[in-house]
Amino acid sequence: MTDAPLVAGVELGGTKCVCVLATGPGDIRAEARVPTTTPGETLPAIEAILDRWAQEHRFAALGLASFGPVDVDRASPTYGAITATPKPGWRHVDVAQRLIARFAVPTGFDTDVSGAALAEGRWGGAQGLESFCYVTVGTGVGVGVISSGQPVRGLGHAEVGHLRIARAPGDSWPGACIYHGGCVEGLASGFAVEQRTGQRGETIGADDPVWGLVAHALGGMCHNLVLTAVPQRILIGGGVATKQPQLIPLIRAALIESLAGYAEADRIAAQIDAFIVPPALGDQAGPMGAIALGLDAL
Amino acid sequence: MTDAPLVAGVELGGTKCVCVLATGPGDIRAEARVPTTTPGETLPAIEAILDRWAQEHRFAALGLASFGPVDVDRASPTYGAITATPKPGWRHVDVAQRLIARFAVPTGFDTDVSGAALAEGRWGGAQGLESFCYVTVGTGVGVGVISSGQPVRGLGHAEVGHLRIARAPGDSWPGACIYHGGCVEGLASGFAVEQRTGQRGETIGADDPVWGLVAHALGGMCHNLVLTAVPQRILIGGGVATKQPQLIPLIRAALIESLAGYAEADRIAAQIDAFIVPPALGDQAGPMGAIALGLDAL
Repeated sequence: MTDAPLVAGVELGGTKCVCVLATGPGDIRAEARVPTTTPGETLPAIEAILDRWAQEHRFAALGLASFGPVDVDRASPTYGAITATPKPGWRHVDVAQRLIARFAVPTGFDTDVSGAALAEGRWGGAQGLESFCYVTVGTGVGVGVISSGQPVRGLGHAEVGHLRIARAPGDSWPGACIYHGGCVEGLASGFAVEQRTGQRGETIGADDPVWGLVAHALGGMCHNLVLTAVPQRILIGGGVATKQPQLIPLIRAALIESLAGYAEADRIAAQIDAFIVPPALGDQAGPMGAIALGLDAL
Repeated sequence: MTDAPLVAGVELGGTKCVCVLATGPGDIRAEARVPTTTPGETLPAIEAILDRWAQEHRFAALGLASFGPVDVDRASPTYGAITATPKPGWRHVDVAQRLIARFAVPTGFDTDVSGAALAEGRWGGAQGLESFCYVTVGTGVGVGVISSGQPVRGLGHAEVGHLRIARAPGDSWPGACIYHGGCVEGLASGFAVEQRTGQRGETIGADDPVWGLVAHALGGMCHNLVLTAVPQRILIGGGVATKQPQLIPLIRAALIESLAGYAEADRIAAQIDAFIVPPALGDQAGPMGAIALGLDAL
């Protein structure tokens, strides 16, 4: 227990939503899960949980970390909505505005990966840094880009998983992204690995050549991140990265080779084991991301 | 004449340095040029000009926009120096600290392209925007990335000209960048065009297929900028872009094709002629960048 503000957080995921009442990862007061089915079922179930918490505990802020893409422009009439998701039934569904109206507390709303990045910055592997990236390599590839302490903003939010990168020499597999074919997600996601090999990722040996191709794509993404968002550190987690721990050293080597001595390459190479690292919060990054967004709204 | 603060600006370029005393592009009180030879010649010549201006006019701030890479980390002992430039004699040469010590006024220091971007934000083609990019395609490819009104900061400054991108189908020319071969600069700079064709860019016809390859590289760079820095607008100027005006429509088409409907692609496509535009300040963007950096230091 601490004197820190109590925050209600909701991580809206593609298959389940995690509601959490906490001041931070060391002080979780309550947690509840709701399956993500339809907005008509899922959102009222979340509201019922938050209603109970509001009565029993009062919370000072609300944080919402959602699967995307989402409308994060506070000046937009559709601020707080999920936008062009392929997820059936959830396209153009308001999430934040109805909860802001219901609970009338300061509310933060952003993508799940931006939230997770902020949580790593507050409590995890990016503490003390102003500019860093959080990458999750799972079914897809998601990236939270933090610049000067905040998620990068402009025309929407970052979608770095869909960068187009230089291909590994001799690799002409078309890739698995329905939009871009061989973008980063189309080459390096768990779904892409499954499409390319016909095997589930966890059944593929650590020395299979597919991991070199995955690391090449992720190293290429890191090259472009380094030269655009100039992070002080890149955290790489998610199911694929966690289950195939040989990937991180391969990505480090791919980044150094790709930078080829340019710009801050020497500084990065000299501290590469601290520059590309696994995240520190593990499975907590998602729900703690919602708490971090709530705290940032205060 | 205005009541705005009077700023002394220095644009340090690879061949010449432009000193300017101004409140903005509509109110230039003095201008002087110094050839860029050696630091031992060039920097004292700049100081002599600024000394005179300091006596005659007093200026409230100083702005320094330099060729790069430069050390922009205010906490670094080498803040204000040019770092790993290939330019003979200028590697690890302090520029800002000696001028800060000499004139004791608030001083802004950044790359020439960050300065030019800020000038376009204040007075030119990016007024009213928080997040935008300024691209110059000349001998090299330089990009100023502005996020939430300021140049992106972290481990150094952005160096987007050296992104690695997907190659145009069937194009296997190795590229002209000494670090990366076929990065953006290695494919799209004036130097790269000259290397590839054996002709100077201004002698190549507008319908030559090389411009399609240049536009593919710059469109790929814009794709990655859109998904990382999420700019509200991208300004593209510089000698090559100015002398080959057919490039801007080709880059617009390449970006739309590359985004392939993803993320904010529909919003961008609907306003593409306002999304990728030439800069508004022309040759003034460089020196006015120095003035903008001085104003931002106040």
